Amino acid sequence: MTFEITILGATSATPVVGKHPTSQVLNYNDQLYLLDCGEATQVQLLRYDFRFNRINHIFISHLHGDHYLGLMGLMLTMHLQKREAALHLYAPRGLDEIILTHLKYSHGILSYPIDFHAFEGNSVKQILDDEYLTVQTIPMNHGIPCCGFLFKEKPKQLKIDKEKLPPNLPIPLILALKNGEDIFFEDKIIHNQDITLPPEPLRSYAFCADTKYHEPVIPQIQGATLLYHEATLTEESAERIEAGMYHSTAKQAATIAHKASVGKLIIGHFSVRYPNLDVFLREARTVFEPTFLAIEGETHQV
Amino acid sequence: MTFEITILGATSATPVVGKHPTSQVLNYNDQLYLLDCGEATQVQLLRYDFRFNRINHIFISHLHGDHYLGLMGLMLTMHLQKREAALHLYAPRGLDEIILTHLKYSHGILSYPIDFHAFEGNSVKQILDDEYLTVQTIPMNHGIPCCGFLFKEKPKQLKIDKEKLPPNLPIPLILALKNGEDIFFEDKIIHNQDITLPPEPLRSYAFCADTKYHEPVIPQIQGATLLYHEATLTEESAERIEAGMYHSTAKQAATIAHKASVGKLIIGHFSVRYPNLDVFLREARTVFEPTFLAIEGETHQV
Repeated sequence: MTFEITILGATSATPVVGKHPTSQVLNYNDQLYLLDCGEATQVQLLRYDFRFNRINHIFISHLHGDHYLGLMGLMLTMHLQKREAALHLYAPRGLDEIILTHLKYSHGILSYPIDFHAFEGNSVKQILDDEYLTVQTIPMNHGIPCCGFLFKEKPKQLKIDKEKLPPNLPIPLILALKNGEDIFFEDKIIHNQDITLPPEPLRSYAFCADTKYHEPVIPQIQGATLLYHEATLTEESAERIEAGMYHSTAKQAATIAHKASVGKLIIGHFSVRYPNLDVFLREARTVFEPTFLAIEGETHQV
Repeated sequence: MTFEITILGATSATPVVGKHPTSQVLNYNDQLYLLDCGEATQVQLLRYDFRFNRINHIFISHLHGDHYLGLMGLMLTMHLQKREAALHLYAPRGLDEIILTHLKYSHGILSYPIDFHAFEGNSVKQILDDEYLTVQTIPMNHGIPCCGFLFKEKPKQLKIDKEKLPPNLPIPLILALKNGEDIFFEDKIIHNQDITLPPEPLRSYAFCADTKYHEPVIPQIQGATLLYHEATLTEESAERIEAGMYHSTAKQAATIAHKASVGKLIIGHFSVRYPNLDVFLREARTVFEPTFLAIEGETHQV
């Protein structure tokens, strides 16, 4: 089952020619989930051939402009495309009011309904539970309500070892085996573990949006297959930054990855002050070796 | 005195990779005036080396997304740059509420004041009168409140023909001549017209934003040096467009230019359905020969 993310943008708030602010597409089994939506995200979706009508769920971490100002344009284009399917928006309270204010003055009624799922910035909440995935908010520490998102695969049906399967086993009993049950058949008990293969490990993706170094996330994202964590700065220049800045360094992102024992780390949200991003990678890898840079257009398997 | 416009974007609402929605920079004597501000206008300003702090006046024709969704990002970047000078915004009522709603949820207070000049969509109003220019709204016909903008040079001081200037003429009398007055000097009357050069003709730029064919604009823009007029469609495909569409064809734009006897016409706001823009140019030039396409990065003298 496909489970991958593609980077659409990874700069921080200051605009840069040829680069884009935060946005990622998560593809699970050809369903697209959009994570943050900075300015011109709709053009990035076009550039990398993601069809808008395959996106049914959009997650906005927080209401700083570089994370959501592309949403209204994308939503209006979906309207021009005569979308009918409901669009699920997951965002801090307030985005609903912003959207309604825009629509009020463009005299617009969208061609499709919006299902708005508001969350608070300070608590873990399960905000989605579909056939394959659950999504929880990950409270961040960013000065305004801000959450990351933890995507977890749901337990799958067990696979049966066909060589061990008794002939003529009725389908309801096969389904019971796939669901992990023991069964009675022809006066014998068949133990589930004797006839099913060990399940594939469940994969998970943790998207940690803008935050200062924040250890409370560690238990929640423990063992995630893939972690994205912002790294706006490096340690060297962080000293020159004013106190109270709500961002992380590459080393801090890597420390979170290390302490949470994740499989792999992607860092992004780079400040425009660094013309060469290799400094981020070198700094992070001193703490957590399997670290990669968020580069527009690149796809990472979860 | 510099008086020129640079095209930052000229597509219509549907996004296109590598192109941008409506925005133009008007440069008058090194003061920058921004006309409309579609998504990612701030990146276009960077691309063509326009410094944000040289922009003090932004004009928004109407509140369809492709004409203003880049404004909030630009304003937030000005804040990051610690701008202090007041920013004058000229827009239909409602943009003020949209901006305040955004700021409410980003918990932001901008580093600079905004002077918001609201206008109605149905009447001519002088909205700016500075040292060199006046600006009037041009009511359009677009289904929602929408205005173009007419930039007119103010009458300049006369130039004096130095060869004819009597020696030792006191400065106050020279200034009086420059202001068009006759003067008395050494018991003689000096007629203004005998000593001043004929004034340079006053230039004007008419920016006609989204509109269906709308002849009432003609008297107001009569004789403009340069006219921008939207041309979303060509005549051929316009037949296939639903009735009641609030846009113009290239031929209609050229007809307005012809009837208003303007010096030169620029057309833009091209629908994405035309891969080759030459059809617009050919169609417009059958009616009005000095027509040009709005191409990103190109500058036109007024």
